[in-house]
Amino acid sequence: MIPKSIIKLIKSLDQKKYRKLSGLFLAEGNKMIHDLLTSNIEIETLIATQGYLEAYASQITSKTEVIASDCDQISKASLLKSPQEALALCKIPDYDLNEANPAKDWVLCLDGIQDPGNMGTIVRIADWFGITDIVCSPDTVDVFNPKTVQATMGSIFRTRVHYAELPGYLSTMKDKNIFIGGTFLEGDNLYTKRLPSSGIMVMGNEGSGIRDTTMPFISDKIFIPSFAVGDKHAESLNVGVASAIICSEIRSRNLRP
Amino acid sequence: MIPKSIIKLIKSLDQKKYRKLSGLFLAEGNKMIHDLLTSNIEIETLIATQGYLEAYASQITSKTEVIASDCDQISKASLLKSPQEALALCKIPDYDLNEANPAKDWVLCLDGIQDPGNMGTIVRIADWFGITDIVCSPDTVDVFNPKTVQATMGSIFRTRVHYAELPGYLSTMKDKNIFIGGTFLEGDNLYTKRLPSSGIMVMGNEGSGIRDTTMPFISDKIFIPSFAVGDKHAESLNVGVASAIICSEIRSRNLRP
Repeated sequence: MIPKSIIKLIKSLDQKKYRKLSGLFLAEGNKMIHDLLTSNIEIETLIATQGYLEAYASQITSKTEVIASDCDQISKASLLKSPQEALALCKIPDYDLNEANPAKDWVLCLDGIQDPGNMGTIVRIADWFGITDIVCSPDTVDVFNPKTVQATMGSIFRTRVHYAELPGYLSTMKDKNIFIGGTFLEGDNLYTKRLPSSGIMVMGNEGSGIRDTTMPFISDKIFIPSFAVGDKHAESLNVGVASAIICSEIRSRNLRP
Repeated sequence: MIPKSIIKLIKSLDQKKYRKLSGLFLAEGNKMIHDLLTSNIEIETLIATQGYLEAYASQITSKTEVIASDCDQISKASLLKSPQEALALCKIPDYDLNEANPAKDWVLCLDGIQDPGNMGTIVRIADWFGITDIVCSPDTVDVFNPKTVQATMGSIFRTRVHYAELPGYLSTMKDKNIFIGGTFLEGDNLYTKRLPSSGIMVMGNEGSGIRDTTMPFISDKIFIPSFAVGDKHAESLNVGVASAIICSEIRSRNLRP
């Protein structure tokens, strides 16, 4: 049996204020928990079927409270439409912003991304392209929102997502002469632009792009050109899609003939 | 007043069988209808506020039945959570598959894409990258699904989406020595591979990728490499994201130094 208090706690984690109060976030699903167990994220409580627990016994540390349950009970606790065999209450990690080092590697910076799905997609892209640090403005959607956690498909456990005031952060980076690129609907053509091997790439909000208070710190305005013939074409790319194209480009430069 | 029969018709267009029966699909929203009015898609019925109709008067043809309405009435007819000032019943276009010419330009091919959101994203990407034709397996999600229509953000009016049995279509193209690339988790590295200036790129289903019956027609297996350090990273990229990276690559080759 899953204690009622735990079910109540799980349901509360849908809201940011309760995540902040408890310092916990929720992860669900067989593959997610598999990825979680092989990560550095601390698990406070693991709820899973007996079979799942047996399969992963060697990876569960003594620090974790383990509750053996069944699919019916897990369904009652779950926030998912199709609950699976495992879910976990995890400690929200407290990453050091100094771990992000744009003098040595690329860092993504998100300026007010609002959609949990886009956020999840961007974390998954960063993970694929080996970008370990993402620095977000405080008003960017919380990555520990259950919808975003699930949308990262496990990439959240391998990516450090920081929240910081961007003007302060970017100003310090600008003083260090770090390349700070930003995507706009005008600027230098991404494909022909010389790019360094590390730096910061800023992605703007879904509707309004990179905001005025962030603008002064952008060293290089970049645009992804449209290849449509004529003047009628999509007005913009989704921010997840734009992030994918940017990451693909910065990572592949060294490989090109 | 919007006649009850029209409201009933609109609601029915959420289902494929009624779209097929009526030969109609639904488009909603100010920007969408703007894009629609400047496209070649035939509008059967346009429902909009008086203000909207006046603003676009010169673009409305005499073939279109026009119903002036108000926001309250439009809300009642709408399938959207946040209805706007205009919606339209449009004729489902009957595109000629011969218009897609992979001997001269790139064609995207979708092998069983299921998610309406992914489908919408892919159409929007194609539009941005000037890819006019998309050929889908018959079991690919219907692009005229209202969710997909909205997710294309108007790109559906500028992109020809065809449905065809892929083995038959690809077999004909193979006989013509057309390049038929497909994305896999193994194959030639996208970034170092020589690519022609036209051909077909096949994108597979979200869960199972390119299916066995499509495989024999693929001339070139391509993969998008992960740049993560170590063996732990995202297992795959979302199909919309992968499509974006592929389109970015095939279109930018000529620009590179």
